[in-house]
Amino acid sequence: MPQSIPTRGLQSSPQALIFDVFGTCTDWRTSVARIVHDHLPTVDAVAFAEAWRGEYQPAMARIREGGRGYVPLDDLHLENLMRVSARFGVTPADPDALNRAWEALDPWPDVPQGLARLKRNAIIAPCSNGSIALMTRLARQADLPWDCILGAEIAQDYKPKPQVYLAAVAALRLDPGQVMMVAAHNDDLHAAQAVGLMTAFVPRPTEHGPQQTTDLEPTGAWSCVAHDFNDLAMRLFG
Amino acid sequence: MPQSIPTRGLQSSPQALIFDVFGTCTDWRTSVARIVHDHLPTVDAVAFAEAWRGEYQPAMARIREGGRGYVPLDDLHLENLMRVSARFGVTPADPDALNRAWEALDPWPDVPQGLARLKRNAIIAPCSNGSIALMTRLARQADLPWDCILGAEIAQDYKPKPQVYLAAVAALRLDPGQVMMVAAHNDDLHAAQAVGLMTAFVPRPTEHGPQQTTDLEPTGAWSCVAHDFNDLAMRLFG
Repeated sequence: MPQSIPTRGLQSSPQALIFDVFGTCTDWRTSVARIVHDHLPTVDAVAFAEAWRGEYQPAMARIREGGRGYVPLDDLHLENLMRVSARFGVTPADPDALNRAWEALDPWPDVPQGLARLKRNAIIAPCSNGSIALMTRLARQADLPWDCILGAEIAQDYKPKPQVYLAAVAALRLDPGQVMMVAAHNDDLHAAQAVGLMTAFVPRPTEHGPQQTTDLEPTGAWSCVAHDFNDLAMRLFG
Repeated sequence: MPQSIPTRGLQSSPQALIFDVFGTCTDWRTSVARIVHDHLPTVDAVAFAEAWRGEYQPAMARIREGGRGYVPLDDLHLENLMRVSARFGVTPADPDALNRAWEALDPWPDVPQGLARLKRNAIIAPCSNGSIALMTRLARQADLPWDCILGAEIAQDYKPKPQVYLAAVAALRLDPGQVMMVAAHNDDLHAAQAVGLMTAFVPRPTEHGPQQTTDLEPTGAWSCVAHDFNDLAMRLFG
């Protein structure tokens, strides 16, 4: 990532920061693989974790397109687990326990301290596709000191639908221009920017493993680009 | 309060505790009066605070009864402020700023530490009639370390309607019997118990001032009666 990209376009500091969680705050790939290994010792745990996550977007797509009502991500994860298990030729003894892998993700190392710093100056909340229950339990395990839980469940729809960002802003009784979306994924930021939010890109270049080719660089005119959450806190609030 | 009432009816410890906030966690009367005095130095600030709070139940009643769609409490508070100001013959110079009194309530002295202790063993969340925005800002000022914000806004209705308690339970993906409602108000606990929740009564005998006559004692067979939040933590989790 370029060292020289300044914080730009910030007319004023955000009053709230809302965060993508799965790849931006937590290392889902390594964490899920570790738990898969405990439950299904015969499979390639990383390949299984990636395949499980691979079902994520297709499962949400039906809901975004209106072909299915809102179903919490916990249930989609369980459906996807059964589908991927069949593909790998295994049957989890306790699917519900394995499904709770998504509540036990490790944060990236800078995240707990970085969030605590940001929280001193602004409201912080997830704007994730995870449910309130999932985000709540994950926060307890990963030490994510959220002020409240926003995201898909309060919008009853999934990112990157505009309503999800706008529902988060409305729940805080703020205007979109007072809220900053923080993500490691350019498409998430494009969607948030399109409805008027400030944006911060924080790359997570090993979210998909050491050979990752996507989201290594900002692809939009984001309000801020930071190396990690501590750097974000420094750039926004000094 | 009797010293001898034991914790009763607890088949198992709650996985989550949900809390009434305005009188149970915070001293709204003293706090609002202090801020009223700053904004309206000519009025009897305690009388004004009590009159403002007196409009609370009537304003919600219309919504509970279906005569009006869900309106966040922030807006009801502002409507009630204008009504009470007229009655007292005053005009706030900045009604929005005065309305934020409800975001700046002092916690009862045991609350921050007691909640931190409870949080080590269970999910903790408000189940208040306050909005997500109001509960979020109040938590930041009063040091209430919630795991998430539940209550009226996610139910789109007001306590003591059963749906508000059940929406909180559902958001946590738990059963009602796994969740304990904590309140200083017996009617709140009656409503929660009626839909299957565990209940804890924590009296706040000066919520309405030194002459308070209501809610000094438990009036139901609550799962637990505690002197304060630290006592509640000890009774539930040792």
